[in-house]
Amino acid sequence: MSTIKDIADKLGLSVSTVSKALNGSDNTSEKTRQLVLDTALALGYGSRKDKPRSANRICVFIENMGFEKIEHFGYEIIVGFRLAAAERDWTVDIVPISMQDKIDYVYDDYMTQNKYSGGFLLGFFLHSDFHRQLGNTVIPTVVLDNLILNPRIVCVGTDNYQGVTYAVEHLASLGHTSIALMNGEGNSRVSQERYQGFKVGMNKCNLPVRKDLAAYGDFTSINTGPYVRQFIENGATAIVCASDYIAVGVLSELAKLDLRVPQDISVTGFDDIPIARYSTPPLTTIRQDRLSIGKSACVALEQVMEGMAISRLLLAPELIVRESTGPVR
Amino acid sequence: MSTIKDIADKLGLSVSTVSKALNGSDNTSEKTRQLVLDTALALGYGSRKDKPRSANRICVFIENMGFEKIEHFGYEIIVGFRLAAAERDWTVDIVPISMQDKIDYVYDDYMTQNKYSGGFLLGFFLHSDFHRQLGNTVIPTVVLDNLILNPRIVCVGTDNYQGVTYAVEHLASLGHTSIALMNGEGNSRVSQERYQGFKVGMNKCNLPVRKDLAAYGDFTSINTGPYVRQFIENGATAIVCASDYIAVGVLSELAKLDLRVPQDISVTGFDDIPIARYSTPPLTTIRQDRLSIGKSACVALEQVMEGMAISRLLLAPELIVRESTGPVR
Repeated sequence: MSTIKDIADKLGLSVSTVSKALNGSDNTSEKTRQLVLDTALALGYGSRKDKPRSANRICVFIENMGFEKIEHFGYEIIVGFRLAAAERDWTVDIVPISMQDKIDYVYDDYMTQNKYSGGFLLGFFLHSDFHRQLGNTVIPTVVLDNLILNPRIVCVGTDNYQGVTYAVEHLASLGHTSIALMNGEGNSRVSQERYQGFKVGMNKCNLPVRKDLAAYGDFTSINTGPYVRQFIENGATAIVCASDYIAVGVLSELAKLDLRVPQDISVTGFDDIPIARYSTPPLTTIRQDRLSIGKSACVALEQVMEGMAISRLLLAPELIVRESTGPVR
Repeated sequence: MSTIKDIADKLGLSVSTVSKALNGSDNTSEKTRQLVLDTALALGYGSRKDKPRSANRICVFIENMGFEKIEHFGYEIIVGFRLAAAERDWTVDIVPISMQDKIDYVYDDYMTQNKYSGGFLLGFFLHSDFHRQLGNTVIPTVVLDNLILNPRIVCVGTDNYQGVTYAVEHLASLGHTSIALMNGEGNSRVSQERYQGFKVGMNKCNLPVRKDLAAYGDFTSINTGPYVRQFIENGATAIVCASDYIAVGVLSELAKLDLRVPQDISVTGFDDIPIARYSTPPLTTIRQDRLSIGKSACVALEQVMEGMAISRLLLAPELIVRESTGPVR
């Protein structure tokens, strides 16, 4: 068992810096944060050898997407999960899978043969066959941002409704009334929840939801040109984006149109991945606390393994105000 | 610390019966169940004196409603909470409050002065002033079935969307296509979620949501006469009710109209309070696992006290098929 002080000593950092990084504080640099988290895992921080528990083996499946999204988004979720698992003396295996693998084996057989007592699925592979398998699995399993009707499956994620509501309320408080929504894929549950949150936020602020100011796109694409031009033509003074990637694409389109952010138009992101802090201007966004998502996945999995049928565990998002939003022109 | 065997010995029951009652099994009688739960609390079942933890004091506020709903619904939630709190060696005070009390003191002052480190609010007093206070509280607090945008507040409850979706899918599988929804109060979040769940379920089953087959009423009232007659006139062959109380009212109206359940019309409830089992005919309903709601409130409160911003923790509902549903006539 190692302590925060062990990590601090090893890295030559202060106990307070290490503590902040472990608690997901926004004030530590990405590099320090990653170093602390890696070291915490390496030193076995959090494990309580004095309190033996049932030695559960957990399999974390992570989709091998071959691009940076999952790397940015998934890394801290896995760290959070592993830290919480270490506290429980659970063994965690990380298994990357690709889209092709998904129908090559049966989930329950795989888990049973490998003596896993629980699973945590991170990624976008929850389609068709695999999705159907999970609907019938008896293995306690946590999925990220997906809803599967099975008492052995918990969905963890950020409260998308709340997050988008915060973004809308923030923009309304700056005087914006013509607010557009640049959403992710139309067939995604996350997009649908963010659209609902947009409607709730607009209603709360007594603003109309206009069909000509809402579009579905692609969470990881920055090709938003046609939509952005349409929003501007229709009078939008602010654009709520369903991801930081989308927001970065929108910023680039606005630059092409010679529109200044935030003087001419305000933009918000969602996720608070590192790019949000380093874009021009830095993005006002909705932060998903990825360490907490990982930790809560572990807490929820423990409860399901003990027989409690948790359906969803959603974390509170946080509005991070940077420079991409300002008073309406 | 007491064990399941201690409880069994004390009551002259088998260990398996006690275990079933503690785990919320549907197979134990209400009377036995209540006896076991009372005895478990009295004997300090679950408390782990060998593992001292921080001695948290928690205040459970329960609305003193003066009628049976909260008695039926709230009792097991409180038991579940107290059992989980005992495992953590937390002290739990139960404070009944009435609607009048709600503006007589400031929540944070009350909690601080009484040295409570967390709260659990059960009831319907979350209006106006108190609601606003909770929006700004710094005290970790769990609320039942309410959503308050504050990272120190967790909402626990049953997944209403899933619950009503199960009811609709069950009726659709019996051949029903004209399904009505007798909902609770229109201004209640629970009603709104159940209406959304109804829409999702109908969409999944490729059935139309008809405005003339949906009405808002009152969760605890059995006065559904005008709505029921309207549904029948409009061709409904099944009525999904948003609570067991409503369903019992609907059964009584259908009897007055000389309609047989389930031969002429099917009816589903929600909650699975004892009345559901003893109505004529016994109700097919959506079970809320109240022991688990209480336990999960404790798990969530622990996480919030440790700094994790959980927004919602929702439990999986369960479809309980009894005799009030049958094939479409």
